[in-house]
Amino acid sequence: MPLFRKDPFGRAWVLLSPERGLLPSDFGSVPAAKPRSPLSPGNEGKVSTEIAAVRPSASAADGPEWRMRVIGHPAELVSPRPFAEEGESLFRQAPSSGYQEVIVEHPDATMTLDAMPRTHLVDLLKLYRDRLALHGARPNVKHVQLTRNVGRAAGALFEHPHAQLLALPVPNRWVQEEMEVAAAHHAEHGTCLFCDVLAREFELRERLVTYNDEFVALAPFASKTPFETWILPRRHGSAYAGVAANTLPQLADILQAVLRAVNDALDRPPYNMAFHTAPANDQADFHWHIEVLPRLTTQAGFDWGAGFFVNPTPPEDAVRFLREALALQEVAL
Amino acid sequence: MPLFRKDPFGRAWVLLSPERGLLPSDFGSVPAAKPRSPLSPGNEGKVSTEIAAVRPSASAADGPEWRMRVIGHPAELVSPRPFAEEGESLFRQAPSSGYQEVIVEHPDATMTLDAMPRTHLVDLLKLYRDRLALHGARPNVKHVQLTRNVGRAAGALFEHPHAQLLALPVPNRWVQEEMEVAAAHHAEHGTCLFCDVLAREFELRERLVTYNDEFVALAPFASKTPFETWILPRRHGSAYAGVAANTLPQLADILQAVLRAVNDALDRPPYNMAFHTAPANDQADFHWHIEVLPRLTTQAGFDWGAGFFVNPTPPEDAVRFLREALALQEVAL
Repeated sequence: MPLFRKDPFGRAWVLLSPERGLLPSDFGSVPAAKPRSPLSPGNEGKVSTEIAAVRPSASAADGPEWRMRVIGHPAELVSPRPFAEEGESLFRQAPSSGYQEVIVEHPDATMTLDAMPRTHLVDLLKLYRDRLALHGARPNVKHVQLTRNVGRAAGALFEHPHAQLLALPVPNRWVQEEMEVAAAHHAEHGTCLFCDVLAREFELRERLVTYNDEFVALAPFASKTPFETWILPRRHGSAYAGVAANTLPQLADILQAVLRAVNDALDRPPYNMAFHTAPANDQADFHWHIEVLPRLTTQAGFDWGAGFFVNPTPPEDAVRFLREALALQEVAL
Repeated sequence: MPLFRKDPFGRAWVLLSPERGLLPSDFGSVPAAKPRSPLSPGNEGKVSTEIAAVRPSASAADGPEWRMRVIGHPAELVSPRPFAEEGESLFRQAPSSGYQEVIVEHPDATMTLDAMPRTHLVDLLKLYRDRLALHGARPNVKHVQLTRNVGRAAGALFEHPHAQLLALPVPNRWVQEEMEVAAAHHAEHGTCLFCDVLAREFELRERLVTYNDEFVALAPFASKTPFETWILPRRHGSAYAGVAANTLPQLADILQAVLRAVNDALDRPPYNMAFHTAPANDQADFHWHIEVLPRLTTQAGFDWGAGFFVNPTPPEDAVRFLREALALQEVAL
């Protein structure tokens, strides 16, 4: 029977419609990238200039010896200028301002996040953290979003694995909504909404994909799209910028397990991945997390005419598929 | 220069990025339908059963002599049962309940809304009104949404022109957000937000597509997607269910002008059209309207990773294109 579910972290109701069954991706599989790309070593400066990089200390900026790089966005939407609202009360506007970066995740264009060596991924997770911290502390920045788009259907700019960072003087509507709902929960109960949900999910064990001491991956109760998977720290923290470095190997493990399971279960679908985080690690009522959203169908997921989500794959079913994929991987090891 | 604009009717900020220019539709043009379809006369009962119809009084239900028909949805997501919430406070759910209908708009599958005779369209607008009124008055219904999807990329079920109605016991998030923002404006100023914006738009005349005594079509200030166009009554009214029948010929004129202009300017793009309406015509702080949303690009419009909209076509530019298309039509008449 189809079910309505209320998103505990937002205002939306979701309609789970399992009778429709799991559809194969309308968007197909993400093909393996060509080994050479405009972002490959030797092409430095061709796409845009280097802002930062992780590279041997003796090597020169814009030289080819980097392990991961932060570059400007080739089609920048925002520029670093003050946020200056103009216009009238009904029609508020401002010249677009902020910071926009592309993080090139590995010199090898074929090296996807799920396959890279753990030490490299840990360093990349540190780089994400440092960029989020840097931009989050800027006076004109209200929200920093770090997203990864994989596959053209998911809006990827390049085949070469990369992340995008956008630091804006205006709020992100999804994160803002989560913050408002979590603040209301905290005002009423004195507890973190996310911590409360995690405690209950560990009792129920119906929607947990995998976990270790520090992190858990789960399919959210009111999943908006098939195989939506969240990764959360088990200990409360409001900002990814404040994540402890010694927990990052465990985050790398969970992230690779989730991406490998999604890739195996769904044949390398296009996907989006987004960090939902507060600017600083000082909020008792928000809990940072990473959302992984496979792009499977044009119809499923967000329907802007409708104003609510229809999801053909209940999270409990998605979790069974993902756990099975993880179990098969362990057998194969 | 790219601009941030705050949606006056919602919580979102939109980024207008005119430098990106108008892109041709990634989704192509909607092809003309074949003259015969599963919804054509003679096929009654093949898709689903008749709920209501506009037909000569002597003709039989499920017979072929109808002018427009209301039928059940062939893949119904909701059933008419009471809304019974179950589960726990963090995990609220209920068996899906409500009413779902398809309105077949004309016996001829090739007869699109912009081309049909005005008298037929006026009767269709009355039928929309009557279905919205009927379902809006039901005790278990919180919101009735009437949407039209045209073209496969816009999620159309059939090529044969049709509308979909969904009456649900849970709110529509977009309409709810507009209602909350408008209620806050009313509490602060004692006026209807939409009426205030309309008054100002008539002073500025930068975003008006066309208007007559009763209705106006405009491109909203913070358009989320290229060529987004709204049709609003110039006199305050909160529910389309309460629209006066003697104004419907003017609504038909405006709607046909908008759809013809969009079709000419953008080469018959896929589009969504949604009625945003309160259940009853008794709210001083909400103002019903119709949103027409052409589907032009996969990238533009809603980006769920990002949580805000990037629109390459400022509404003032879209209005110039649409007005030009209208002027050329008048020359052609």
